[in-house]
Amino acid sequence: MTSTRPRYSRLVAALPAVVPFVPPEALERQIGAELRLRIGANESNFGPSPKAVAAMTAAAARVNWYCDPEGHVLREAIAARHGIRRDNVVLGAGIDDLLGLVVRTVIDPGDAVVMSHGAYPTFAFHVNGFGGKLVTVPYRDDRNDPEALAAAAQRSGARLLYLSNPDNPTGSWLRAAAQTALLAALPEGCLLVLDEAYADFAPADAVPETAAEDPRLIRMRTFSKAHGMAGARIGYAIAPAEMVRSFDKIRHHFGVNRVAQEGALASLGDAEFIASVRREVEAGKRHYERLAAALGLKALPSATNFVAIDCGRAERAKAILAALLEKERVFIRMPGVAPLNRCIRVSVGTEAERRLFGEALERVLADIPA
Amino acid sequence: MTSTRPRYSRLVAALPAVVPFVPPEALERQIGAELRLRIGANESNFGPSPKAVAAMTAAAARVNWYCDPEGHVLREAIAARHGIRRDNVVLGAGIDDLLGLVVRTVIDPGDAVVMSHGAYPTFAFHVNGFGGKLVTVPYRDDRNDPEALAAAAQRSGARLLYLSNPDNPTGSWLRAAAQTALLAALPEGCLLVLDEAYADFAPADAVPETAAEDPRLIRMRTFSKAHGMAGARIGYAIAPAEMVRSFDKIRHHFGVNRVAQEGALASLGDAEFIASVRREVEAGKRHYERLAAALGLKALPSATNFVAIDCGRAERAKAILAALLEKERVFIRMPGVAPLNRCIRVSVGTEAERRLFGEALERVLADIPA
Repeated sequence: MTSTRPRYSRLVAALPAVVPFVPPEALERQIGAELRLRIGANESNFGPSPKAVAAMTAAAARVNWYCDPEGHVLREAIAARHGIRRDNVVLGAGIDDLLGLVVRTVIDPGDAVVMSHGAYPTFAFHVNGFGGKLVTVPYRDDRNDPEALAAAAQRSGARLLYLSNPDNPTGSWLRAAAQTALLAALPEGCLLVLDEAYADFAPADAVPETAAEDPRLIRMRTFSKAHGMAGARIGYAIAPAEMVRSFDKIRHHFGVNRVAQEGALASLGDAEFIASVRREVEAGKRHYERLAAALGLKALPSATNFVAIDCGRAERAKAILAALLEKERVFIRMPGVAPLNRCIRVSVGTEAERRLFGEALERVLADIPA
Repeated sequence: MTSTRPRYSRLVAALPAVVPFVPPEALERQIGAELRLRIGANESNFGPSPKAVAAMTAAAARVNWYCDPEGHVLREAIAARHGIRRDNVVLGAGIDDLLGLVVRTVIDPGDAVVMSHGAYPTFAFHVNGFGGKLVTVPYRDDRNDPEALAAAAQRSGARLLYLSNPDNPTGSWLRAAAQTALLAALPEGCLLVLDEAYADFAPADAVPETAAEDPRLIRMRTFSKAHGMAGARIGYAIAPAEMVRSFDKIRHHFGVNRVAQEGALASLGDAEFIASVRREVEAGKRHYERLAAALGLKALPSATNFVAIDCGRAERAKAILAALLEKERVFIRMPGVAPLNRCIRVSVGTEAERRLFGEALERVLADIPA
């Protein structure tokens, strides 16, 4: 044993050197130019609420003070909105943070965790990072397959089952009845992690209110999507009060920054702005459907702020993605694994951005065989 | 096994339900009134740099975009400032985040970790949270005792040795020669975690530049103190490039928010502001020394933005702290364990705040026996 290089924990030493996402900034450094369109990370190009901007601006001048680590005021507001108690709400620095927290709280090394194959890479990153054993289930008809997910959880004795609803990267959604059936089919002691990042864009019966004290369920929401605050890093989860208290044993108490807490509170109070974003996103999805159809492609139905566009074959989707970046300086993403990787995934931008995207897509398709 | 209550990992199930700090906001809820003075958390009441505020205000309007998870621009600026390479810099959501990261990266359950008894509670929180075995060493003459710390690391085969320099809660500091001697006395494979949160207030020879590739050392800095950005949540560590790459395996890639990154970059560029804060803090420490002496108390020497004031006995310090809160609505803190708990710890506020503090302290001392 020498001290000529650092030593690592067994878990970390065994992990591969992968990162979940290549960011648009790295792509800009790669192509040596600024992107013309940034519509790949499902950010909201409709921006944050003006009320949230005003609150964040005020908070910036008081940023010498730590945040309230109990997030008292914001949790009260969130609880009121859902008709639950503050004790059932935990804040996090985005859903990414909350996913890490729930994995760490529940999973011992070797425990099984079930998710759809090709679902949110950052959740898989956390499961691997804490030594969980990932069990994946294929998408079926470009949707999560709740019966197969539950069956896999039963077979593996899973402690966690992750479901993004509405789903990323497909845009599909499960209605309340399917969620209730999934909960009922979970094995004993398995927790359903319902990632509702795109809830604000979903039909009401896809994101029903639930009993906050249901020990089988934790639901996660974010201010990164409809609220247009991805860069602020704030989200929350609804969970049994005992679980929220358990998070207190390990969470970063001062980790949800003051600017984000103030901005989120103001944004929660701006229902009109969120409604306007929702209308814009609906119009934008119709726009993308027309664009896709006009170019001989097919947009998958979506309850989110993005659309997966079926390009027929993985090689074609990859070529389109690369050409959009390199020839057009347009940033989009695509699902990483089959069969979804025959699609590209495009976030809904403003009308001007959508038009630019349509023109860029038409140009690159001219050079790429069907 | 039933699903009537959530199940937890072995580590989390075994943890006590403690939180590292009671925040001033919780104290306000407890006393049912607003605090008059908030000088307990070593926040900088001189605020953030106006340049940082301007940058954060601009960032708030673009907060719909995720941050650059590689923190490329800010890491370049930090590297330039220290004369090192970007690959030796990792960003975190404050030093709290970085401490969690290094513990998780290095410690397997049962591994020994050495720190001074009564040093930063959040570091102990992380060690416990990842199953490390804390070995503590008493302060000696109100200072960290590097020889005893190294000896404890040798005896226990520690993987980490934590040292806050300048120190919290004493304000004391170790010079370069003592740090070099401590590094040389570490057991093989033990990493020195040098928490330099208060570096901006320290004499130059207490915070020397070091070889970034030294495998025995990770140094941590924050924008929470002199830069006045505690609520923004941003700090950085300097470590061997291989260790920085290992952090990438587990860190929250998008966790350092955009507003904080932009604010920190601007603040780094405002050396004049930081110099003015340093002058104010120096003047404030002299002010506190005079205040303490006039009341028959003694301020410990400090290389930070706070002063520990020796009140003679733990009971007296506790009584002063309680009376300041309840009668005067003044928030300060005190060390949690003997022998330091005969002190109260007061952050340097503005001149007006210091005068108010002196008056409040004088009033409460009138009712508390020596």
